[in-house]
Amino acid sequence: MDNNISCEMKVETGDAGYVLEDVPHLSDYIPDLPTYPNPLRSNPAYSVVKQYFVDADDTVPQKVVVHKDGPRGIHFRRAGPRQRVYFTPDEVHAAIVTCGGLCPGLNTVIREIVCALYHMYGVTKVLGIDGGYRGFYSKNTITLTPKVVNDIHKRGGTIIGTSRGGHDKPKIVDSIQDRGINQVYIIGGDGTQKGAAVIYQEVRRRGLKAVVAGIPKTIDNDIPVIDKSFGFDTAVEEAQRAINAAHVEAESAENGIGVVKLMGRYSGFIAMYATLASRDVDLCLIPESPFYLEGEGGLLEYVEKRLKDNGHMVIVVAEGAGQELLAAESLNSPTAQQDASGNKLLQDVGLWISDKIKRHFARQTSMPITLKYIDPTYMVRAVPSNASDNVYCTLLAQSCVHGVMAGYTGFTSGLVNGRQTYIPFNRITEKQNNVVITDRMWARLLSSTNQPSFLRPKEIIEVRKQEELQTDEENSAKTNDI
Amino acid sequence: MDNNISCEMKVETGDAGYVLEDVPHLSDYIPDLPTYPNPLRSNPAYSVVKQYFVDADDTVPQKVVVHKDGPRGIHFRRAGPRQRVYFTPDEVHAAIVTCGGLCPGLNTVIREIVCALYHMYGVTKVLGIDGGYRGFYSKNTITLTPKVVNDIHKRGGTIIGTSRGGHDKPKIVDSIQDRGINQVYIIGGDGTQKGAAVIYQEVRRRGLKAVVAGIPKTIDNDIPVIDKSFGFDTAVEEAQRAINAAHVEAESAENGIGVVKLMGRYSGFIAMYATLASRDVDLCLIPESPFYLEGEGGLLEYVEKRLKDNGHMVIVVAEGAGQELLAAESLNSPTAQQDASGNKLLQDVGLWISDKIKRHFARQTSMPITLKYIDPTYMVRAVPSNASDNVYCTLLAQSCVHGVMAGYTGFTSGLVNGRQTYIPFNRITEKQNNVVITDRMWARLLSSTNQPSFLRPKEIIEVRKQEELQTDEENSAKTNDI
Amino acid sequence: MDNNISCEMKVETGDAGYVLEDVPHLSDYIPDLPTYPNPLRSNPAYSVVKQYFVDADDTVPQKVVVHKDGPRGIHFRRAGPRQRVYFTPDEVHAAIVTCGGLCPGLNTVIREIVCALYHMYGVTKVLGIDGGYRGFYSKNTITLTPKVVNDIHKRGGTIIGTSRGGHDKPKIVDSIQDRGINQVYIIGGDGTQKGAAVIYQEVRRRGLKAVVAGIPKTIDNDIPVIDKSFGFDTAVEEAQRAINAAHVEAESAENGIGVVKLMGRYSGFIAMYATLASRDVDLCLIPESPFYLEGEGGLLEYVEKRLKDNGHMVIVVAEGAGQELLAAESLNSPTAQQDASGNKLLQDVGLWISDKIKRHFARQTSMPITLKYIDPTYMVRAVPSNASDNVYCTLLAQSCVHGVMAGYTGFTSGLVNGRQTYIPFNRITEKQNNVVITDRMWARLLSSTNQPSFLRPKEIIEVRKQEELQTDEENSAKTNDI
Amino acid sequence: MDNNISCEMKVETGDAGYVLEDVPHLSDYIPDLPTYPNPLRSNPAYSVVKQYFVDADDTVPQKVVVHKDGPRGIHFRRAGPRQRVYFTPDEVHAAIVTCGGLCPGLNTVIREIVCALYHMYGVTKVLGIDGGYRGFYSKNTITLTPKVVNDIHKRGGTIIGTSRGGHDKPKIVDSIQDRGINQVYIIGGDGTQKGAAVIYQEVRRRGLKAVVAGIPKTIDNDIPVIDKSFGFDTAVEEAQRAINAAHVEAESAENGIGVVKLMGRYSGFIAMYATLASRDVDLCLIPESPFYLEGEGGLLEYVEKRLKDNGHMVIVVAEGAGQELLAAESLNSPTAQQDASGNKLLQDVGLWISDKIKRHFARQTSMPITLKYIDPTYMVRAVPSNASDNVYCTLLAQSCVHGVMAGYTGFTSGLVNGRQTYIPFNRITEKQNNVVITDRMWARLLSSTNQPSFLRPKEIIEVRKQEELQTDEENSAKTNDI
Repeated sequence: MDNNISCEMKVETGDAGYVLEDVPHLSDYIPDLPTYPNPLRSNPAYSVVKQYFVDADDTVPQKVVVHKDGPRGIHFRRAGPRQRVYFTPDEVHAAIVTCGGLCPGLNTVIREIVCALYHMYGVTKVLGIDGGYRGFYSKNTITLTPKVVNDIHKRGGTIIGTSRGGHDKPKIVDSIQDRGINQVYIIGGDGTQKGAAVIYQEVRRRGLKAVVAGIPKTIDNDIPVIDKSFGFDTAVEEAQRAINAAHVEAESAENGIGVVKLMGRYSGFIAMYATLASRDVDLCLIPESPFYLEGEGGLLEYVEKRLKDNGHMVIVVAEGAGQELLAAESLNSPTAQQDASGNKLLQDVGLWISDKIKRHFARQTSMPITLKYIDPTYMVRAVPSNASDNVYCTLLAQSCVHGVMAGYTGFTSGLVNGRQTYIPFNRITEKQNNVVITDRMWARLLSSTNQPSFLRPKEIIEVRKQEELQTDEENSAKTNDI
Repeated sequence: MDNNISCEMKVETGDAGYVLEDVPHLSDYIPDLPTYPNPLRSNPAYSVVKQYFVDADDTVPQKVVVHKDGPRGIHFRRAGPRQRVYFTPDEVHAAIVTCGGLCPGLNTVIREIVCALYHMYGVTKVLGIDGGYRGFYSKNTITLTPKVVNDIHKRGGTIIGTSRGGHDKPKIVDSIQDRGINQVYIIGGDGTQKGAAVIYQEVRRRGLKAVVAGIPKTIDNDIPVIDKSFGFDTAVEEAQRAINAAHVEAESAENGIGVVKLMGRYSGFIAMYATLASRDVDLCLIPESPFYLEGEGGLLEYVEKRLKDNGHMVIVVAEGAGQELLAAESLNSPTAQQDASGNKLLQDVGLWISDKIKRHFARQTSMPITLKYIDPTYMVRAVPSNASDNVYCTLLAQSCVHGVMAGYTGFTSGLVNGRQTYIPFNRITEKQNNVVITDRMWARLLSSTNQPSFLRPKEIIEVRKQEELQTDEENSAKTNDI
Repeated sequence: MDNNISCEMKVETGDAGYVLEDVPHLSDYIPDLPTYPNPLRSNPAYSVVKQYFVDADDTVPQKVVVHKDGPRGIHFRRAGPRQRVYFTPDEVHAAIVTCGGLCPGLNTVIREIVCALYHMYGVTKVLGIDGGYRGFYSKNTITLTPKVVNDIHKRGGTIIGTSRGGHDKPKIVDSIQDRGINQVYIIGGDGTQKGAAVIYQEVRRRGLKAVVAGIPKTIDNDIPVIDKSFGFDTAVEEAQRAINAAHVEAESAENGIGVVKLMGRYSGFIAMYATLASRDVDLCLIPESPFYLEGEGGLLEYVEKRLKDNGHMVIVVAEGAGQELLAAESLNSPTAQQDASGNKLLQDVGLWISDKIKRHFARQTSMPITLKYIDPTYMVRAVPSNASDNVYCTLLAQSCVHGVMAGYTGFTSGLVNGRQTYIPFNRITEKQNNVVITDRMWARLLSSTNQPSFLRPKEIIEVRKQEELQTDEENSAKTNDI
Repeated sequence: MDNNISCEMKVETGDAGYVLEDVPHLSDYIPDLPTYPNPLRSNPAYSVVKQYFVDADDTVPQKVVVHKDGPRGIHFRRAGPRQRVYFTPDEVHAAIVTCGGLCPGLNTVIREIVCALYHMYGVTKVLGIDGGYRGFYSKNTITLTPKVVNDIHKRGGTIIGTSRGGHDKPKIVDSIQDRGINQVYIIGGDGTQKGAAVIYQEVRRRGLKAVVAGIPKTIDNDIPVIDKSFGFDTAVEEAQRAINAAHVEAESAENGIGVVKLMGRYSGFIAMYATLASRDVDLCLIPESPFYLEGEGGLLEYVEKRLKDNGHMVIVVAEGAGQELLAAESLNSPTAQQDASGNKLLQDVGLWISDKIKRHFARQTSMPITLKYIDPTYMVRAVPSNASDNVYCTLLAQSCVHGVMAGYTGFTSGLVNGRQTYIPFNRITEKQNNVVITDRMWARLLSSTNQPSFLRPKEIIEVRKQEELQTDEENSAKTNDI
């Protein structure tokens, strides 16, 4: 993947250490584009709104914990409608695509892009690309109208289908060009946004008047910069059911253990938040926090202790936790295997850890255990978004549409410190949002579960060093460090 | 109420227009207080945390939409544990009181204050004041331990009871002094926080080493400065049930109208967010947006039009909407009546508007309607908090405890731009958070319901002027202007 | 209403006191009707079914508690497919109408009638009559196909609309005759089934080959003979939410009282079952059990006692409870007012009793109370049916279609002792199913709430006498006497 | 297991083929036991109840579909309070034990036994045996009072714990004898009830005045004679979540397949009812209906066809389905392995069938599928019972207590044709309740899913023969043949 173009990030600086990381614009590579007054001016719903149009200079800081004399730091362009737009309603031919796994809120985002285009901007040509990236070249499209999308926010899943992989740059851009699509809304995770960046570059290389915009989707909340990904609240809420069930099963048996596997390939946010919200969890394992099974301070010792003290326990494990332990056991290194989106294929850590615990106690005849393993993954992913996520998805979708109509391209729409912004693709894709295990949020979790940190003194020092490097340059994620 | 003391707000300024509105501290009026190392230093859960203690200079800006060369504006002190505390564990005698109406999350806040005091700071004397302010002097107290509060976050309501009114400054401060209470946690709304300010002033006047801290509770989200009040998400979620029911009832009848009254005495946030989340609502009435019934552009004309176009409609009305119309009709001006908390007693606008609509159509024999009125207020208030609010309440409670242990007093704990802060009481109580009807959030609502703005051209100009004055000085509320 | 024809109930007798109360048949008044083999014979799904066709002699007893030597009693014809049918698929022109208030499961019944006609019997002409009885002559019809009804069971309400009243015999039968409708499925309560009986008589009088069949719908469970009406389970389930909220509100206030009004105009089954299921209720008031407020053994005395003992209480009141007390207070006797279905217009007993309690305690300054009143009626009625009701509605609809295809008419489909049967209209409409307050189910309730019976010794004797007369002739309702 | 004693079933016959299968009584083997008036006589809640005491001659027929001249058939003794009891309140020392897997409603049954004993009969000594049968001899007991059990019906699981196996006759009866327990309430499934029968026989052999009563618990609904087991409705309801999720996942992917495994070791009732209630299922596999994968009319052919027609499909599979296919593939015959309750250890048919389908389509490059497998078992088992099951559990528990107090022993409490009865142990344990695949309920399912019957003509004949033998002797289960 060639990042040359996207790397030319538009950066502007100001006094007191102010930095604006701006997003590209159609006019960057197409001169003399005509502009039009924003149709919202004549929309009755907006006629009372004094300051409906965002001030051209509005920006939002990435960092909100500041010192009196500290530098102001990185800022992003604020999202919202602009006074002038770069498309007439008739000219717009929009396409929406959803990629990767399901996430609560996908349908709401689709609905609101369609409704914003129709009702705010008078656009009437909106296509749904069927089944992810490969739908651009191998499948029929779906005509999207306000009527078609009217009730879809009450259903889980995505009505335009989704898939992993299928990212074939030339075929996709050919399809965009051939169909005359000039607005592409790409909803997907890390890999998908990387793909969107590549499409944007190719569209730009070909000099097409076509905007490529992303809406970050990740149930794991592992996208950096943004406050929180849509669907995350709903997922944490739904995960409570599984934790409650595990708790009931554990409590009703002698030495009962309930194990719940939650989503989180590389980052344990769902597991951490679900644990904090529940308060019934005794052990939470996440990819960011290494652990070991045997010996002093190890997991099995802790399990034994909890059972002796309480008679039962609940374990929450993120799917990506302990993968290095599983890999070490496996002849076929799992790093070699990837799914169609390029995600590492993980072994099922929930089954693995359940097995390890069972074997451990099977050796101890004096302490028979009853272990129940629950994997609610697909039940969590498939629920409709809750009210809070519905409102969030609405703002996200509308913000994205405003930016696209205003000619911005190569950007992702995202909430930063509670404000909608436009973020350059590379800021979203260059790294992941992780639980910082030397930050307070994880300390809160350790304090709530009373689990050991599984770190030996020497490791603590190393972990700290590593993360100092990381967090020096910028604030760590909001979801870590509130 | 004498505001002399609280008005001496501690303000600090810096470069580029930086202003810090700081909170009082015990050492402001008691000299030479001893301090102690924070016990968290030796807490195993926190041993890995690199930056567990908040930097003494950390502050959070109230305003996050900024311009390159604009002033930095007002900041608040960041919440979090400090290196040194002003109480030994044995010395602390804490009291928690909940005042006013129910709100999802009360029990979680209680639980987490108790757990933070016990598990983080080794405190073992925590009292629950039974039944609101008057519990200080007229009722028994409840001993709160981690065991007592263990499962209470799964229940609605407040286990220590609540009531309106009962704020008798001398009796309360006498009780604090007599019992030797030195940490008072006051959970309640606008009126309650004003009362807390008064208690703080009296405690200070008497020179007591006793901290008075507030946690803002308002299901209506009408407290200024903070991002969102706890329980709000849960309330909006639960309100969906009522809206769904109203929609089903309306759809199943000829010219069916479903009317749902939601909470919101002075501010329509729940109504606005519930409407945006639902998408089944055709008309949303809030206190901030005046409307009229009769004539061109009036409510009844719109209802008639919607029924003719759609065959049914759903109306959401906040309890405080249209009170000036009800008052005008009433001989006994409702402004004269107040409840024990000092809240204006409102007439039931849901019944009133239902009646107006029924009468209107009863005069038109050609258009029989079926109107169903739903008031889910107590069902919404009484649910347990959802996962997202549970986590929020946890952070709020812990932040408050950290501040109290560090000797800060006369403050409210609150989330500002996604970060926990300490806010001086008067900033919270001097005005209310309202839906700004010339801001984008309300425009989004109008656009989603297609309802008229009920404003005549001349009024629009006036409304704008008024709000310009208001919003010039500071950013409008986050929940308006995302 | 002329009952001459329906009164000629087809009764058959047998040994040991066996009585069959049979339903009418097209062949009773139209001679020489051709019959056809049931198309189910060639349906692959049924090819394995050994005894798919119901034995022509199958009957179901109304009474299942029997004595060794007692008479066998009244029986009904068992529902189910017959070997021969009286319609060809092409000939059928079916119409479905829903009347009266909403009830969970209406859409499932509609769905399953449509699907049974299409998939089992190859029928393709099914109309929905829009908006209740008056839809026959004043509104357009809705074409119902399996595709149209595919997902409707997941929604509350009725997609074909409903209304009260509008029963105009000549107009309706003219409409049936003019449109060539030959199967009429009428879903509704007591009044609606009476109307169906009248339509059946007129259809018979005109000699039309048109079947009129009823499906009893009553959220109150007040239809006699049948085990339980559809939607009842769902309603009792949903009512738990309101009771829980009332309990939380009551517990959180000093002398808190939560009052919940539930459906039940003439019979208190929902209130009784919801109370038994919840266990948080201290007082349950139903139409069948008179009570008095003042004096010894009165309601107010009991309320006072409970508050003194427990500090809070929950009251569940069926909408029809205490109407004689309200009437006595009212100048305009409420019996004079009826709604369009002929139901007595009731005054709101929930508000009335709340007011009475408030006034009582307002006189007692020593005992301030906090009373919260919840009326969840429309929220309960509008939910989709739960899984159990979905299956029940399916069987009810299929049973009805089988009977109609087999030429039976003038009947209601109903579950009797767990088996689907065909019941003559007059058995359903001649009286109501009531809670028998001298039966065990009500005793269980009294025992669970500890409330007084509000009966003075003399009344007890009278109540018993009255009910002996009633229950001597037949078993009381299943829901009373399990 | 020696069945000699229990086989001496007390059978009484009457006219017209009437048969009463009665239950044992303490007086059968202990002469001259004193009796006492039932304390309910003086209970205020029951003072109005005319016919509170069950008529000594009341019986309930097992079969309710009858012919005019057919025999009356088998009857059971009706449950309910008797005029005289065989225990004084002070004399009673009751014990409750729960065995086997979790089932919604366990806590409600425990709660209601305790409350019935305390509040109806004035009993104050009730023990919970901790952790199933083995709790009799290896663990501490739990004192159960109305206060302890007050809120437990709102929680899933069993507060007294449960386990499989541990049935050691001498040790258990020694424990009963040593502790002076004279009422044993045994809640559990098939195996547990067999164990209860053995305990009863031994208690009788030793001549102890101790009653042994069972309450049948089986989430699978596989206990014969009774209408439905408690928790079944709740389980079917909860299973809808998993089916909905599977449907959403399937719809959102190209050739998406959602597979849901539900409970049902030997009988597919949950799978069948969940499928009928949902209507989104395309294939339902149960233990009673054999199927094959390959070739014409096979499962894989059908899957392929559905995907081609619809683009996605949902499969529900009961855990015991297709075990003969799995066994055939396995070297270690699974029949050799049993769990501690003596249940055959099954291989996971959900994983197996998912794997078979994946392999099949992996061979067909033209048709890539996406399969998601959901196993909600522990989430379904652990939910609290719904309102309908709560009422059911209450009646079941009270009926059992009445029977025990009246001196009946060696019986199971059960609902037969909607009435509570006492059933001899052996009638419950001698065989299982199965889905009869030649009955109408299964035909309804086939018709709703459109799935093939997987039976070849020759097999159909055999299946019919087999089941004729079975169903000739008695009515098949209610849940089959409505």
